Amino acid sequence: MLCVNVELQERRYPILIGSGLLQNEQNYPVKQGDRVMIVTNPTVAQFYLESVMTALQKRGAVTEYVLIPDGEKYKTLESLNLIFTALLKANHGRDTTIIALGGGVIGDVAGFAAASYQRGVRLIQIPTTLLSQVDSSVGGKTAVNHELGKNMIGAFYQPSMVLIDTLTLNTLPKREVNAGLAEVIKYGAILDNEFFVWLEKHVDDLVALKQDILQHCVARCCRIKADVVARDETEKGDRALLNLGHTFGHAIETHLGYGNWLHGEAVSTGMMVAAVLSEELGHLSLADVSRLEKLLARANLPTVSPDTMQPEDYLPHMMRDKKVLAGKLRLVLLKSLGQAYVATNTDHTLVLNAIRRCTQTD
Amino acid sequence: MLCVNVELQERRYPILIGSGLLQNEQNYPVKQGDRVMIVTNPTVAQFYLESVMTALQKRGAVTEYVLIPDGEKYKTLESLNLIFTALLKANHGRDTTIIALGGGVIGDVAGFAAASYQRGVRLIQIPTTLLSQVDSSVGGKTAVNHELGKNMIGAFYQPSMVLIDTLTLNTLPKREVNAGLAEVIKYGAILDNEFFVWLEKHVDDLVALKQDILQHCVARCCRIKADVVARDETEKGDRALLNLGHTFGHAIETHLGYGNWLHGEAVSTGMMVAAVLSEELGHLSLADVSRLEKLLARANLPTVSPDTMQPEDYLPHMMRDKKVLAGKLRLVLLKSLGQAYVATNTDHTLVLNAIRRCTQTD
Repeated sequence: MLCVNVELQERRYPILIGSGLLQNEQNYPVKQGDRVMIVTNPTVAQFYLESVMTALQKRGAVTEYVLIPDGEKYKTLESLNLIFTALLKANHGRDTTIIALGGGVIGDVAGFAAASYQRGVRLIQIPTTLLSQVDSSVGGKTAVNHELGKNMIGAFYQPSMVLIDTLTLNTLPKREVNAGLAEVIKYGAILDNEFFVWLEKHVDDLVALKQDILQHCVARCCRIKADVVARDETEKGDRALLNLGHTFGHAIETHLGYGNWLHGEAVSTGMMVAAVLSEELGHLSLADVSRLEKLLARANLPTVSPDTMQPEDYLPHMMRDKKVLAGKLRLVLLKSLGQAYVATNTDHTLVLNAIRRCTQTD
Repeated sequence: MLCVNVELQERRYPILIGSGLLQNEQNYPVKQGDRVMIVTNPTVAQFYLESVMTALQKRGAVTEYVLIPDGEKYKTLESLNLIFTALLKANHGRDTTIIALGGGVIGDVAGFAAASYQRGVRLIQIPTTLLSQVDSSVGGKTAVNHELGKNMIGAFYQPSMVLIDTLTLNTLPKREVNAGLAEVIKYGAILDNEFFVWLEKHVDDLVALKQDILQHCVARCCRIKADVVARDETEKGDRALLNLGHTFGHAIETHLGYGNWLHGEAVSTGMMVAAVLSEELGHLSLADVSRLEKLLARANLPTVSPDTMQPEDYLPHMMRDKKVLAGKLRLVLLKSLGQAYVATNTDHTLVLNAIRRCTQTD
């Protein structure tokens, strides 16, 4: 078992990473008589709810659960209210613990429920997708969507603990594993050349879900993100680097309609555009661009723009991005593999050119 | 103008208290181009919305407003969502400011909206009722109700500033002014004998809304509450003393149905029961009990139990109170006028006897 500590100004919390952690009652920080409300969805529940409840009950905790429907479109105030109703019907007090068992949607909704139920109760995150394991369970962002915007309602709220069982990836659709790998590769590209090289060596083992390799990988990603978040809790500086590929990626997701390409798939192509643009600006060698492309391809990720999207379609979406300041594009680009920076006011012709180079021409 | 600073671990904020503060643009901490969303209700809006908007616009701020219906029953997630919709429709970003213009309900809902819109935006409280001026605008508690419980969903979120214009009390129904005075008298009774004596001298001027006396009074209450909150942000110790009269008061409110007696009216009778019980326990003299009774009566507040409620009706409600721990009553009682304490496990016969003594017998 690996342990990554997240150090924040006010508190620290541990991320435990291993295989088969869910079944072992010793991993749960609860005691006799503690009340626990598990928030999950039907898909995850069929695989893991019973194991988690059994382990908690072995510690003497009194467990209940509430299911919210599966999918991003249920990341709403209504789902949040389902959790509050379940807690109130069963008379849960301020001393209750909420466990988020599932992917990013469950983590976000259950996390915000924990932040706001009786003005804040204890939260344990058990992320069960690769994306949520390496990304959304670190940093304390919780939120629900509003019909007029994603993640518009939420709180910064840190869990007491994150429990990552990499065996849960065995029940995850392969396409979602691969999408998670896009974010993994991103960490190497923006901040950690050594990790990038390690990924070039081990990406096939990751795709094959080799447990010890997976654990090392998840721990490294959590360490990188935890360091970034600790340096920049309020999201003013370094944290922006985590958005490599995301401005282009969001344009793809918006243009195709959310859900057609997975987030990680859009980010994969977005990173390629950023790399090509970085090459045009004289930072990255063509060889390095090619290394990134090969790594993404080995993770079965797209590296070119969707064929239903024209290069001209990107900029209008990009200019509506939250990261645009005073009408100027702010893009995360690469100085080298392992070193990202924020470029402001990049020439639109260069941007369009990079997008064209990442468009299927055959 | 008076100023009370609230000192918290992470930050401090000022409470400005005066007459005619709303009209003076110098009192608003906004600058040219700042965006502001005012949250208010139709009743308060007709009196003060235009003044506040005009003052903000003189500073160059871009102002909008959203109305939520008047009354405790609208302190809901639905009203919260009205605020989010207004913010999103007008493209408000993380740099927006929410102003809560109204009484306790507006402060609670708008405060929670500020805590959770894009994970937190700036908040200015402008309380317009005596109760919200001396109580709910200090301490950072925000919340909405759930159909299964009051104040069950919320956050601790501190405003950047509280602006109290005591002239707004001129448009408040007299009955609500008096109900606010119950909480004012409470501050004297629990923590400040000197203030209690001052109130005995000035209560008629307060009922008559004499401005300089009102300002002194509101500032003193804010100072007392700010000190308590600063000592006990997490609500484990001293803050409990603020509940003098509230356990009995909640029993009255619940028994009669919320809204039949105002909160302050129920607290007034509740304080009398607590005082009589304190006398039975040998702490308070009969003369002191009588001083409290006279002061409450001069503020036109009830000092005896509602005639539709029997002494036996109290305990069942009281045992369901959040402050009951392990089946034992925890009551705030008085050692003397100006010194409260928390009594645990008080004999139920004594409690019942005190309630009987506060029941109308004619």
